[in-house]
Amino acid sequence: MSKVLIIGCGGVANVAIRKCCQNYEVFPEIMIASRTKSKCDDLKKKLENEKTIIHTAKVDADNVSELVSLINSFKPDTVLNLALPYQDLTIMDACLATKTNYVDTANYEPVDTAKFEYKWQWEYNERFTEAGITALLGSGFDPGVTSVFSAYAQKHYFDEINYIDILDANAGDHGYPFATNFNPEINIREVTAKGSYFENGDMIETEPMEIKRVYDFPQIGPKDMYLLHHEEIESLAKYIKGVKRIRFFMTFGQSYLTHLKCLENVGMTSIEPIDYNGMKIVPLQFLKALLPDPASLGPRTKGKTNIGCIFRGIKDNKEKTLYIYNVCDHEEAYKEVESQAISYTTGVPAMIGTMLVLNGQWRKPGVFNMEQFDPDPFMEALNKWGLPWQLDFNPKLVE
Amino acid sequence: MSKVLIIGCGGVANVAIRKCCQNYEVFPEIMIASRTKSKCDDLKKKLENEKTIIHTAKVDADNVSELVSLINSFKPDTVLNLALPYQDLTIMDACLATKTNYVDTANYEPVDTAKFEYKWQWEYNERFTEAGITALLGSGFDPGVTSVFSAYAQKHYFDEINYIDILDANAGDHGYPFATNFNPEINIREVTAKGSYFENGDMIETEPMEIKRVYDFPQIGPKDMYLLHHEEIESLAKYIKGVKRIRFFMTFGQSYLTHLKCLENVGMTSIEPIDYNGMKIVPLQFLKALLPDPASLGPRTKGKTNIGCIFRGIKDNKEKTLYIYNVCDHEEAYKEVESQAISYTTGVPAMIGTMLVLNGQWRKPGVFNMEQFDPDPFMEALNKWGLPWQLDFNPKLVE
Repeated sequence: MSKVLIIGCGGVANVAIRKCCQNYEVFPEIMIASRTKSKCDDLKKKLENEKTIIHTAKVDADNVSELVSLINSFKPDTVLNLALPYQDLTIMDACLATKTNYVDTANYEPVDTAKFEYKWQWEYNERFTEAGITALLGSGFDPGVTSVFSAYAQKHYFDEINYIDILDANAGDHGYPFATNFNPEINIREVTAKGSYFENGDMIETEPMEIKRVYDFPQIGPKDMYLLHHEEIESLAKYIKGVKRIRFFMTFGQSYLTHLKCLENVGMTSIEPIDYNGMKIVPLQFLKALLPDPASLGPRTKGKTNIGCIFRGIKDNKEKTLYIYNVCDHEEAYKEVESQAISYTTGVPAMIGTMLVLNGQWRKPGVFNMEQFDPDPFMEALNKWGLPWQLDFNPKLVE
Repeated sequence: MSKVLIIGCGGVANVAIRKCCQNYEVFPEIMIASRTKSKCDDLKKKLENEKTIIHTAKVDADNVSELVSLINSFKPDTVLNLALPYQDLTIMDACLATKTNYVDTANYEPVDTAKFEYKWQWEYNERFTEAGITALLGSGFDPGVTSVFSAYAQKHYFDEINYIDILDANAGDHGYPFATNFNPEINIREVTAKGSYFENGDMIETEPMEIKRVYDFPQIGPKDMYLLHHEEIESLAKYIKGVKRIRFFMTFGQSYLTHLKCLENVGMTSIEPIDYNGMKIVPLQFLKALLPDPASLGPRTKGKTNIGCIFRGIKDNKEKTLYIYNVCDHEEAYKEVESQAISYTTGVPAMIGTMLVLNGQWRKPGVFNMEQFDPDPFMEALNKWGLPWQLDFNPKLVE
């Protein structure tokens, strides 16, 4: 009977927890802990007919001793961290202090520059090794499944992978002229941050949104996509031997970018407070109050996501190409777990990664990225738990 | 010694008052009255070396008896109304009560639908006639000078004018990605209101911004322009005999329209208050606080305006075409009167119309539009007072 403590109760946690309940043989007992206990209680209430025993607790994930107390009282086998990305290190500290395994799903774009994010966590490797516990980093979709796809391609289809293009397409349509799934501040940073890609041993920096391509995605159709920095570039460059170039592309619609640009131009995305009738108001906070609540987008979003990797390399001295991707339908995801595909594609891998640590298949002392483990059980689980993948040996390449 | 009471102390009043001071022989003594007396005092201070004697007063232009008291104490020959357009009728009432002449410059877009605006003022005709006083309506540029151009074309160049296209181009560049010269609420209404034009005796309604043309303006170059409703269409249709079609076009840049549309899409232009941290805040008011102060645009605006009319008709049984227009330079206007061309092109005609009522050239009992008077003295004054006009007998026509 292995217990899991899940920290965080947002959109991704909602999916991961429901998936744990579906997979109750592996997750017979969980605790959901968050700064706002009522959110945990609300979710628990919705899941009262599930077989998994659910506890709830209030915890401040910035506070190591509070985390240690909670872990010591609940005694989980593994902590699944679905809190904010800047709380990763306090939770890892608490896991070290209590000799508890650790899994996280790095946020799509962490608060600090993604480039340096892994460095901080990798520095925990020696301590986790000595403590005899596992830390599994970035068990979401991208990063996460994209690394598993890479390890799978490496294991079964290539002698050497030379080029990886990670393509993240969201063709969801919520019917609003403009709305964001996440904090608009994070969206702004995405499109205003410099891009970067790995080539011949170096990270090459680009201007924000400088490199644009159009790609005709399976089941979605042609979309504009832009080269961004993304954190798995760093770990793949380290663990995929012989790789010469790794790029990450994400789709953005022209209308979305235009709205974002206009809002930025008039100062609506600024975090500097302005004077308004004697009050100090942060324009971005006011914008957030004005935009549709991200939680309201789920029920009305139609369309699909397509996230995957195109590999080019050598097998038996011949050039070879492989595209592995998953297509996830927003409406079907919402029907199943009351979250659309953005949360679904992150929450499902979070559950799977935790399962593999729990059942020992991905359990060894140290701090690990996803591509360091045998991809086969993860790939099998993706098919079983709602994120089936496709192989295409003759994909259109990205220029 | 004829005295003039000027009500209002905004951007247009600033220009008109400075022009009165330049024309001190006609305007030896004026009073500036506004809800905020300090604004009048500030302007008076700037003009302390001028020959015109300037008085200031506080007045609530919504309050007829307050207006009557002020007029009775100052005893002006004429009231120049540069207050808000919805205060036209109270000021006309006060003029009737005190037998004082009245001049206004209808705002570019009045608070109530422009279509019905003249009707209310035209209903004062009998009372002004009986009182033996003059009301001169809309002595700005458009409406105003555009009507004078029409009367001038009619008098000197046509037996019958059949087509009038009024073109209002602003090629000013203030260097901001987005800012508005006026209340953004009025800007929004401009581009979201239905358009209309006069044809064969009827007003034809169009969808907002439905009719777009590109016109290559003298001294400005090609600009996108859109058909809007505008109030002089109504008076020209009434007073230019034989006219078959009257259209009004105004230029809008694509970037301006895109910003306005995006702001509208996210709800920033709404006048419905939203809840923000327990306060009620009107998004449009917040947007106004965020945007550059319209008064700050003057010193930094470069470029020119071009406003004029293209006439097509018959002279001596032959088809004839004439384009009369004025080009006004934002920077030169600012250098002269500390206001850029938008206020300049309205403020100068306001002074001229008042002058012609004062000196008797445009003085007769009743309520009049600009095109009902002899255009020659007005046209002469435009050349003298800063808005010289050009004649082009072979202009490019608007499709």
